[in-house]
Amino acid sequence: MAEVSQESKKVLDIQEIRKEFPVLDQEVNGKPLAYFDNAATTQKPLQVIQALEDYYKGYNANIHRGIHTLAERATKAFEETRVVLHQFLNSKEKEEIIFTKGTTDSINLVASSFGRRFINEGDEIIVSGLEHHSNIVPWQILAEDKKATIKVIPVLDNGELDYEAFEKLISKRTKMVAVNHASNSLGTINDLPRIIKAAHQVGAKVLVDGAQATAHIALDVQSLDCDFYAISAHKFYGPTGAGALYGKRELLEEMPPYQSGGEMIKDVSFSGTTFNDIPYKFEAGTPNIADIVALKEAVNFVNRLGKENIASHEMNLLKYAVEGLSTIKDLKLVGTAAEKVSVQSFIIDGVHHFDIGQMLDARGVAVRTGHHCTQPLMESFGIEGTVRASFAVYNTVSEIDSMIEGLGRIVKFMK
Amino acid sequence: MAEVSQESKKVLDIQEIRKEFPVLDQEVNGKPLAYFDNAATTQKPLQVIQALEDYYKGYNANIHRGIHTLAERATKAFEETRVVLHQFLNSKEKEEIIFTKGTTDSINLVASSFGRRFINEGDEIIVSGLEHHSNIVPWQILAEDKKATIKVIPVLDNGELDYEAFEKLISKRTKMVAVNHASNSLGTINDLPRIIKAAHQVGAKVLVDGAQATAHIALDVQSLDCDFYAISAHKFYGPTGAGALYGKRELLEEMPPYQSGGEMIKDVSFSGTTFNDIPYKFEAGTPNIADIVALKEAVNFVNRLGKENIASHEMNLLKYAVEGLSTIKDLKLVGTAAEKVSVQSFIIDGVHHFDIGQMLDARGVAVRTGHHCTQPLMESFGIEGTVRASFAVYNTVSEIDSMIEGLGRIVKFMK
Repeated sequence: MAEVSQESKKVLDIQEIRKEFPVLDQEVNGKPLAYFDNAATTQKPLQVIQALEDYYKGYNANIHRGIHTLAERATKAFEETRVVLHQFLNSKEKEEIIFTKGTTDSINLVASSFGRRFINEGDEIIVSGLEHHSNIVPWQILAEDKKATIKVIPVLDNGELDYEAFEKLISKRTKMVAVNHASNSLGTINDLPRIIKAAHQVGAKVLVDGAQATAHIALDVQSLDCDFYAISAHKFYGPTGAGALYGKRELLEEMPPYQSGGEMIKDVSFSGTTFNDIPYKFEAGTPNIADIVALKEAVNFVNRLGKENIASHEMNLLKYAVEGLSTIKDLKLVGTAAEKVSVQSFIIDGVHHFDIGQMLDARGVAVRTGHHCTQPLMESFGIEGTVRASFAVYNTVSEIDSMIEGLGRIVKFMK
Repeated sequence: MAEVSQESKKVLDIQEIRKEFPVLDQEVNGKPLAYFDNAATTQKPLQVIQALEDYYKGYNANIHRGIHTLAERATKAFEETRVVLHQFLNSKEKEEIIFTKGTTDSINLVASSFGRRFINEGDEIIVSGLEHHSNIVPWQILAEDKKATIKVIPVLDNGELDYEAFEKLISKRTKMVAVNHASNSLGTINDLPRIIKAAHQVGAKVLVDGAQATAHIALDVQSLDCDFYAISAHKFYGPTGAGALYGKRELLEEMPPYQSGGEMIKDVSFSGTTFNDIPYKFEAGTPNIADIVALKEAVNFVNRLGKENIASHEMNLLKYAVEGLSTIKDLKLVGTAAEKVSVQSFIIDGVHHFDIGQMLDARGVAVRTGHHCTQPLMESFGIEGTVRASFAVYNTVSEIDSMIEGLGRIVKFMK
């Protein structure tokens, strides 16, 4: 079961937390690693790695259909993660948590299954200009199949969505609004209550891509009242290859299966097949048992630290980084929304983002460069890509000092 | 890179091999564990578990789009597994290996993508009566969508396919033949060369569900000349949540993407999107990096032992088990094909398979009971389910003795 969240505010001991992440304790190119690529994937604490080892050394077995002891232990551990995620997201019922391989898989499930059932010719789907390709392309493919139309919420210069434009876009033709909770490129936290309220007023459903929010923002899908919420374990200290989709029961029940095979059926015959109840209807085949078992420990890790405390540390890092970056000659911050998660993109006039990334790597600083799978957003800013530094709970101000110092030298060297 | 296969025949030292599987060294209900549920999932050797730990403690990073050192190390390790699988399956090119979450995912990919492109109204899809639900239901859904028809190859009393009936079923209307390499319920090895030759003569394509073959049979997709081959890592000593699809380049290139999102695109804009080349076109989103990296070690493990040596040990176990089972009063073997992998199903007159499973578990013996996700097969035999014992390289004759002794006592007790 989930460890109880530490509700009381506290200052985290980052050096102690770093000891839980062996990967951080290494040199890269002769310099201590400063890992600032957390929006791509976070590192994993020992309790997650240990959960994998315990599973494989102790009770690995296929689940649900087995009556022997190992199968029962594995099934129990697997289903415990469902309860833990149900509490973590505050869904109304645990059956509203579908295990997937990650956010992309979750969004594809909804685009395909909700789309097949509820999207028709002439309908409109609204996505935002801040979306990752994984929350654009599945809707494009669906729209093409169904002769529906995609509308795009424009992005303001600071990286916030243009809500007034959104409220003009939305209409009775809108059937789905697909937006992220926080932007992977810019860190912008979107005003979901405003979006969801407006969508529901016209009867549209809302899917939230929560990949970039899960590690940073306290979540409550009931209070948000979103219809779908998609997450990836590896973005919040969990293993790769595991994630989940939250969906409201009444929608999930009306939607046809996505993938088919074992587990998602009640009865199969060549004259016809009866599908299982949710959540199993959407979980065809042997799931990623080990990683879903270990995912529970990622939630436990976040709960033990407390999301408020994590966010507070990360906001200090972000503020410190922004101050430091602002001292670099010809550096332009990309994404300066009022409400952000700990992600900062930037470009430097006359120096290619790719070169900056390589030169920072030579100094042990790991950042991401490129379009961050948000080409339409980059185009709207008239740029090809950015350098992106994204911070997690284990990052420190001295690591940021290394980055800022490195950038200073790079600019000096390149100009 | 893959360790070179030991071509020379040798007798394996099973006690030494068992030391590589810590999970086997435990008591269940006060008795030493005898794990005979290998067709559901195999246990994992230390080198697979170690690979996960090494990845997460050493170089966890998101792949392909990163230029920092950890991302390059992770990408290299991930792509090495593709090369290793390409060699393991003997595909013509490494780009013909698509990473998926397992066999079910691989089959759904083909049913959806090949189906969308190549299946039309009035077409026929042939599946066998031996199939797992995962190789039935995706085709049923496709057939319903496309107004195509499913035809079924009947199964003979001994568990072999009726090839003469198959050769009457197949016609110019047949577009796809979907069969397993080996049956998960009965162990029957199907005569793929005969099926594939007949299918190709009428221009049909062949998808092989290889889930139950990978751990036991030497594979060569070029020599088989199958069009698709689907596998799961967890069925051959690898981690859960990872698998692959082999497909011939010319087919994969003509097929539309299945899931969409990051990685599978070249360019995204709201006016249109260009898809990536294979294999990436079919690998949307952050893949299951850690497990795919560790999957390489499952192949290395199998190659180190040598598949011929593994199969030779398993055939001894199967023969020994069949002899022992034949001494049990009122026990009927289900599945007695001439060519089998190391799987034996059975029923006992008057004792429910579920009760047998529970009573064996009380003696530390883990078997699977039920319909094994092959309800149509069970129905064709007029039974609800079986007890299934399936053997892997680490099983021993003394474990089989425990099972046979247990069954003897169960029969005595129940009658």
